[in-house]
Amino acid sequence: MTTQKLSGLIAATYTPLDDQGHLNLSMIGPMVEHLFRVGIDGVYVCGSTGEGMSLSSEERRTVAEAYVQEIDKRVPVIIQVGHNSSREARQLAAHAQQIGADVISATCPSYYGINELSDLIDCMAEIAAGAPDLPFYYYHIPALTGSRIDVVEFLKRGCEEIPNLVGLKYTDTKLHEFQMCMETDQQRFDVVWGCDEMLLGALATGAQAAIGSTYNVAAPLYRRIIDAMNAGDQVEARRLQLCSITMVRVMSKYPFHTAMKAVLGMLGLPMGPCRPPQGRLALAEVEQLRAELTQIGFFDWCGTKTLESVPHTAET
Amino acid sequence: MTTQKLSGLIAATYTPLDDQGHLNLSMIGPMVEHLFRVGIDGVYVCGSTGEGMSLSSEERRTVAEAYVQEIDKRVPVIIQVGHNSSREARQLAAHAQQIGADVISATCPSYYGINELSDLIDCMAEIAAGAPDLPFYYYHIPALTGSRIDVVEFLKRGCEEIPNLVGLKYTDTKLHEFQMCMETDQQRFDVVWGCDEMLLGALATGAQAAIGSTYNVAAPLYRRIIDAMNAGDQVEARRLQLCSITMVRVMSKYPFHTAMKAVLGMLGLPMGPCRPPQGRLALAEVEQLRAELTQIGFFDWCGTKTLESVPHTAET
Amino acid sequence: MTTQKLSGLIAATYTPLDDQGHLNLSMIGPMVEHLFRVGIDGVYVCGSTGEGMSLSSEERRTVAEAYVQEIDKRVPVIIQVGHNSSREARQLAAHAQQIGADVISATCPSYYGINELSDLIDCMAEIAAGAPDLPFYYYHIPALTGSRIDVVEFLKRGCEEIPNLVGLKYTDTKLHEFQMCMETDQQRFDVVWGCDEMLLGALATGAQAAIGSTYNVAAPLYRRIIDAMNAGDQVEARRLQLCSITMVRVMSKYPFHTAMKAVLGMLGLPMGPCRPPQGRLALAEVEQLRAELTQIGFFDWCGTKTLESVPHTAET
Amino acid sequence: MTTQKLSGLIAATYTPLDDQGHLNLSMIGPMVEHLFRVGIDGVYVCGSTGEGMSLSSEERRTVAEAYVQEIDKRVPVIIQVGHNSSREARQLAAHAQQIGADVISATCPSYYGINELSDLIDCMAEIAAGAPDLPFYYYHIPALTGSRIDVVEFLKRGCEEIPNLVGLKYTDTKLHEFQMCMETDQQRFDVVWGCDEMLLGALATGAQAAIGSTYNVAAPLYRRIIDAMNAGDQVEARRLQLCSITMVRVMSKYPFHTAMKAVLGMLGLPMGPCRPPQGRLALAEVEQLRAELTQIGFFDWCGTKTLESVPHTAET
Repeated sequence: MTTQKLSGLIAATYTPLDDQGHLNLSMIGPMVEHLFRVGIDGVYVCGSTGEGMSLSSEERRTVAEAYVQEIDKRVPVIIQVGHNSSREARQLAAHAQQIGADVISATCPSYYGINELSDLIDCMAEIAAGAPDLPFYYYHIPALTGSRIDVVEFLKRGCEEIPNLVGLKYTDTKLHEFQMCMETDQQRFDVVWGCDEMLLGALATGAQAAIGSTYNVAAPLYRRIIDAMNAGDQVEARRLQLCSITMVRVMSKYPFHTAMKAVLGMLGLPMGPCRPPQGRLALAEVEQLRAELTQIGFFDWCGTKTLESVPHTAET
Repeated sequence: MTTQKLSGLIAATYTPLDDQGHLNLSMIGPMVEHLFRVGIDGVYVCGSTGEGMSLSSEERRTVAEAYVQEIDKRVPVIIQVGHNSSREARQLAAHAQQIGADVISATCPSYYGINELSDLIDCMAEIAAGAPDLPFYYYHIPALTGSRIDVVEFLKRGCEEIPNLVGLKYTDTKLHEFQMCMETDQQRFDVVWGCDEMLLGALATGAQAAIGSTYNVAAPLYRRIIDAMNAGDQVEARRLQLCSITMVRVMSKYPFHTAMKAVLGMLGLPMGPCRPPQGRLALAEVEQLRAELTQIGFFDWCGTKTLESVPHTAET
Repeated sequence: MTTQKLSGLIAATYTPLDDQGHLNLSMIGPMVEHLFRVGIDGVYVCGSTGEGMSLSSEERRTVAEAYVQEIDKRVPVIIQVGHNSSREARQLAAHAQQIGADVISATCPSYYGINELSDLIDCMAEIAAGAPDLPFYYYHIPALTGSRIDVVEFLKRGCEEIPNLVGLKYTDTKLHEFQMCMETDQQRFDVVWGCDEMLLGALATGAQAAIGSTYNVAAPLYRRIIDAMNAGDQVEARRLQLCSITMVRVMSKYPFHTAMKAVLGMLGLPMGPCRPPQGRLALAEVEQLRAELTQIGFFDWCGTKTLESVPHTAET
Repeated sequence: MTTQKLSGLIAATYTPLDDQGHLNLSMIGPMVEHLFRVGIDGVYVCGSTGEGMSLSSEERRTVAEAYVQEIDKRVPVIIQVGHNSSREARQLAAHAQQIGADVISATCPSYYGINELSDLIDCMAEIAAGAPDLPFYYYHIPALTGSRIDVVEFLKRGCEEIPNLVGLKYTDTKLHEFQMCMETDQQRFDVVWGCDEMLLGALATGAQAAIGSTYNVAAPLYRRIIDAMNAGDQVEARRLQLCSITMVRVMSKYPFHTAMKAVLGMLGLPMGPCRPPQGRLALAEVEQLRAELTQIGFFDWCGTKTLESVPHTAET
């Protein structure tokens, strides 16, 4: 089992669809090349961003395989296998191990509310056991799963029953809880930050890795935030983080992930619409989104145009 | 497409598991015989009660087939196919039609919140199209799905895009909304009541059919409520409904469906535990549950002992 | 202490304001006369409907006095004294007793969430002790207070520490919980129904009294529902209840209480706007509301035009 | 109107009560002296911490006066005047101005949910107009008020209608929203951080002032966090912040503010219990709390024992 911690910027990638909503596997290669061009340190496949929950299990396997193949061991590939059925999730985990993924991660079931820590551990233990040779990261995203189980307690007690539990994808805004997770059990766990527009605060708090959707379109911007923080230049880091916040506020006026996919299209990567229940964008809305992003300078600072001037520093 | 409305008491059945949490198909036959003995008018398979969301798709197909086969056309069999992935749900719907189910039903996806009526309709249209020859009932259960979409509007606009939309399983407590759904479009829709402990009020409001989990264990009690209401004896109906309420309050002290399965065990039908994330019951808790149910007289009035004295009246 | 239970239709009255949002006491007399004309059996003053929470304590006292004086002992006057400060609420309770109100009622504090039953009892005990000679009704309205404390347990344990606790204003849609409250402790408590658009179901379940805002504008309609239920004519009762539901759905498109006040204005009783944070209606919106109500026939069946033909039957 | 921004650590002070829950004004002097001893830069009176909502308006005036008098212009005194009744809140604001407070602040009404930005602005405008000569800080604390109104939009549009709106007390965990508030309108607004256990991240993001309850008991600890951040020593800052997080996690096992008051008692400042609906602590629980705090070293690093070694640096 890989015991090295994750580091840097990990793109929660999108699943390319065609206009009818079917998988468009031909776009995974270009997407991966784009991600390398902008300097990504890993990919997180079939997460909330990647519409994992909206895909059939067969589609999830297909997408996972395609990403593993295209990435070709250049950076870690994390497959998100969370499902309302832990049984099905376990099968997805087993498949991920079999195809050569590097890491698995899973949300908790969310249809039935989880009331007890032991119930959460039981679910996660079943899933993680499907890929016993891979590190397992619990995907904590209470805004979508509704989980109210204390995540610090989950780490403390969960690691006793889940041998390959190594950490969390922490997608919430409670930096204090994030910090406590990192410090738990003598910094045993790898706790990865999941709220892009708060990266600055997370870095100050000690984050070493971040998984997020906006790294698909603006990784160089975020790398400059990391560099500024490493250089002790918080004023510059804030200036850059504000770009990120402004971008997210613009996109949040629309169905968020649909807007993100449209932006990838503007950058030359047609990823298609999102599946329902996530909304669609009319053509006029796409043009309005483009205009709003142009107005805030997004296409100037997102980094894909000006890659050469935004070096990928080794020390992050 | 069957256009007859559902009627009477429809058991949201349980999925029998063994102690390791695997399917225990050998119990489906006895369970079905039990349901006929107590006078059930239909079964609802793989719903919230039947842990449909906790089963793998393969398991859902297996359970659906077993129930369809055991019921053998004696009463309608409704297969619940809701899934976070409408794509996967559609495949489950197609399978249900293929195996001879009578009706399909589905919750909306719940991982991603649904913000727009049109997104809900898109999802339900995709699912319902998987079984075009079967009537489709949207399963409205906002306490579990979190949906805030107006269900009256869903019926009004949904029926334009979903040819086989015939009604709802309405699992909420807003009788006024339930009534409005029934009255919408000149009483076009079949709206089935889903809150057992409010059956009396629903009957007064015009309910003709009800789907619920406690009909598995106490159908004769509920039939007597229906009879009392038909006879105009509201005082007796209230006395009987109070038994139902008391029973539900006792069970709600425990993980509800796990307790219900334990009660089926007490009635001679070992259905096993629930899968996580629903909790387990320790042996001592089962005995405490039995004692509490004995104290409120459950085993006297639930009806399975005294079946002969509780005739299944034809006129309901 | 009056031990007689409440009965019939009790109007949760509005507080008349002028266009600047100041109290307009001159309208309380006409409002009371209107309520008697339509056959109201009691008034509930400074509740959620009456904007009690938006008034200063001094204003609440003034409004309470005016209603007590105008009602002049013809029907029971209930003063709602709930406040985030139980201390202040207790003073309002003492004032209500002093001015000759018949009953007090109070919501729980809602700014700080209540986690324990004992904390709820402590608050209600303090408030009720301010008017020891008056019956006290806990005002259960979880949609506004957010309280998750079991209200059946509150009755059971609360009556030990609150000598004048006689019942509840139950404003939720859980008929089973309502029924359980009525049955608790050998039907000791007076549990008053609070969801107008579900009156039919509540009557079937045994409700003897109801407090609500739409009784201000459509009491005769609701009285006909009561009469139909008493006569065993559920079909007619449903037809009439549907009028109520339709009316509430129309008004709910607007800030609800502001719309209700506008309707009172249409009926000849200018009650003014609501205070913020409840919204205002532009003149065009008022006209649209009038048109929508006309379309559903509201002004024909609300009862104020056709009072003579809707006799106030004694037996309700 | 004071236009200087707030800075440093501002204690959200407690309201001293006696064992019967009455005001215990004699403790305000000692409390204020304690706060100066530990190096506080301001006090926030009658906030969520100070049980403002649980006090009568008369008591709120009394407490406000006592704090203004004891502070005697040495640091800014902010009086929180939020109330479900904007009318009453306005009167409290007027009183605060009259007695010589430096700043007013108010939560939005929370009994009626606020649906529109304009309704929030209307409420805040009414309140702020009660103290036109004082700066007004909107108190954003959605976990308690339930407000979903975008606070950035509130600042942008609110300042047009509220002449003395100068900023926010931002009590949430969304650092990106906090940052956006700070940046809005060319950094026009004074946005004060309100989540103590995330101070480090807020400082990195640019916070210049913080208001919180744990500054009452551990201000020197937090000052060392500020100093470490100013010195560029993030590792030390994290170590100190972890002390804060650990402390808050211990206290959160109990009714939080009741526990905080008990801790003040342990530090020689008997502040009494909290009023219901906040819970009480049994004597055994107080001893357990003391033991748990001792175990994490709280009494060593909270700073009150070792004040000399924790200099109040001027440059923060």
